[in-house]
Amino acid sequence: MTPDVILREVGLRDGLQLVTGDLPTGRKIDWIRREAALGVREIEVTSFVPASAFPIFADARAVVAAAHQIPDLLVSVLTPNLKGAAFAMDAGVAKINYVVSASEAHSMANVRRSTAEAIEDFARIVRLRQERGLSDQVQLSCGVATAFGCTIQGVVEEGVALDVARRLIDIGADEVMLADTVGYADPTQVERMFDTALQALGDFPLAAHFHDTRGLGLANIAAAARVGIRRFDASLGGLGGCPHAPGATGNVDFEDAAFLLETMGLSTGLDLEGLIALRKDAQAWLPEERFVGALARSGLPKTFVRAPRTRLQHS
Amino acid sequence: MTPDVILREVGLRDGLQLVTGDLPTGRKIDWIRREAALGVREIEVTSFVPASAFPIFADARAVVAAAHQIPDLLVSVLTPNLKGAAFAMDAGVAKINYVVSASEAHSMANVRRSTAEAIEDFARIVRLRQERGLSDQVQLSCGVATAFGCTIQGVVEEGVALDVARRLIDIGADEVMLADTVGYADPTQVERMFDTALQALGDFPLAAHFHDTRGLGLANIAAAARVGIRRFDASLGGLGGCPHAPGATGNVDFEDAAFLLETMGLSTGLDLEGLIALRKDAQAWLPEERFVGALARSGLPKTFVRAPRTRLQHS
Repeated sequence: MTPDVILREVGLRDGLQLVTGDLPTGRKIDWIRREAALGVREIEVTSFVPASAFPIFADARAVVAAAHQIPDLLVSVLTPNLKGAAFAMDAGVAKINYVVSASEAHSMANVRRSTAEAIEDFARIVRLRQERGLSDQVQLSCGVATAFGCTIQGVVEEGVALDVARRLIDIGADEVMLADTVGYADPTQVERMFDTALQALGDFPLAAHFHDTRGLGLANIAAAARVGIRRFDASLGGLGGCPHAPGATGNVDFEDAAFLLETMGLSTGLDLEGLIALRKDAQAWLPEERFVGALARSGLPKTFVRAPRTRLQHS
Repeated sequence: MTPDVILREVGLRDGLQLVTGDLPTGRKIDWIRREAALGVREIEVTSFVPASAFPIFADARAVVAAAHQIPDLLVSVLTPNLKGAAFAMDAGVAKINYVVSASEAHSMANVRRSTAEAIEDFARIVRLRQERGLSDQVQLSCGVATAFGCTIQGVVEEGVALDVARRLIDIGADEVMLADTVGYADPTQVERMFDTALQALGDFPLAAHFHDTRGLGLANIAAAARVGIRRFDASLGGLGGCPHAPGATGNVDFEDAAFLLETMGLSTGLDLEGLIALRKDAQAWLPEERFVGALARSGLPKTFVRAPRTRLQHS
């Protein structure tokens, strides 16, 4: 039975990159194992970045190795550049995530490269995959950051964001994600952009990454799901944000997103009560972090009915 | 110039009924005056209830009298019964709000009357208005509480909630509001119910009252606005809830709701920055209360464009 929607956990990467404390490797592995047991099918487990800059990811290889022991879990990692991607391929990672900012200003602030240079780096990663003969083993996913606007530059033309997506696909991306890195997206814009993208790209796997910075995270997921998007990022307790986007705190809360999608008749395959219990433990592990989200406080409605699971894989 | 959407402030009633501290009459009047100056066109300024049960509303007449001095403001009050409605008519209130629970169990817990008895009481209020010759001066609005489900009873059949709405209109309501008293509504249900209601009731003024208990308050407003609803309740900072609905804390945050509606191209006529400033003051006045909402923390996006104001009044 395949769920209608893939809700991908990014808390172990997008969440942890901003925490002030530490999370021991064993806790991370526990988090991953328990989420997989609760029905999570894809987890971005870590980031392949210099440990000097992000000591919390110094255990990336150990985390990946442990995650690879879990059956039926798609293990993905974030890599900011070719070097990180090479390490990820060495580690046998099945899915590598990379990010290109549609906003030139954000791209320079975030990775000190222009958008075009970042795209060129992605092309190098695709070539590396080919040189290593891994084109059938390693999926490459690429996010289009600041696709809905930028705190530095302001407006990002929708045509520019969609053009970046198209170029990434032409280069060899297996999945493209439109990301509201700074929490500027609204439901009207989300519906319009994803509708345009789906019409232009057809069956190509498109994903959405929203932040709840201005309270519209769930409304944006609803809008994207409405036009046919079936892949979403979220993080347990809404951990995380973007260090280079001021005020952009907060991924969409994982449990709340799963609840919303189920109410839309889209099965997630997730054990919501189990996720709420895990979230409470994670909150104890990271006592200095702000956990957001409503379901953990209020519980499921008495009237809640899970969406039926289908046998067909939707786009 | 008429805004597309009426966002009604209910914090001074639905919000204050649950606060642990007090708010002096002068502060309430200040809140009302400042909101009116920021473009708010309708405020539920108080509740005509026994002061013994709700001492915070003991100043109801003084608040109403001061609110009546403000030009272009529609002053409304909540009344739980005929007696309260008579007091409100004595005070010259132009709009009286009343509530009937679609859930029998909630109706008994909340006002110790069956749904049918509560409807009968509304009929008495309509007759009183007629006897006093006020049918052209006083609007009667009626909320259908627990229209989307009930924490006590569970499911509330959609047909039952819509039938209650129909009976209230037949009796003489000038406006009917479907209210998610306990925060059970989801966007799919909201769209379906309001779509059905609008088809059945045509041009009749339908309003929506959502709580953000499970994080879906804004997604629900978006869903209702999408099918044509143009009247919404919200409260500054999301103050309030329902004392008889466990866990049902939190109206939808006023500023966030206004922001969302503007992004949908629906003008609210509101000064969003001014509302955020007022909210900060209100938070200082009520230091023990939990203020929610995202915009006050994050600010408006750089890319924000106000919806153009139209000259036509929408439904």
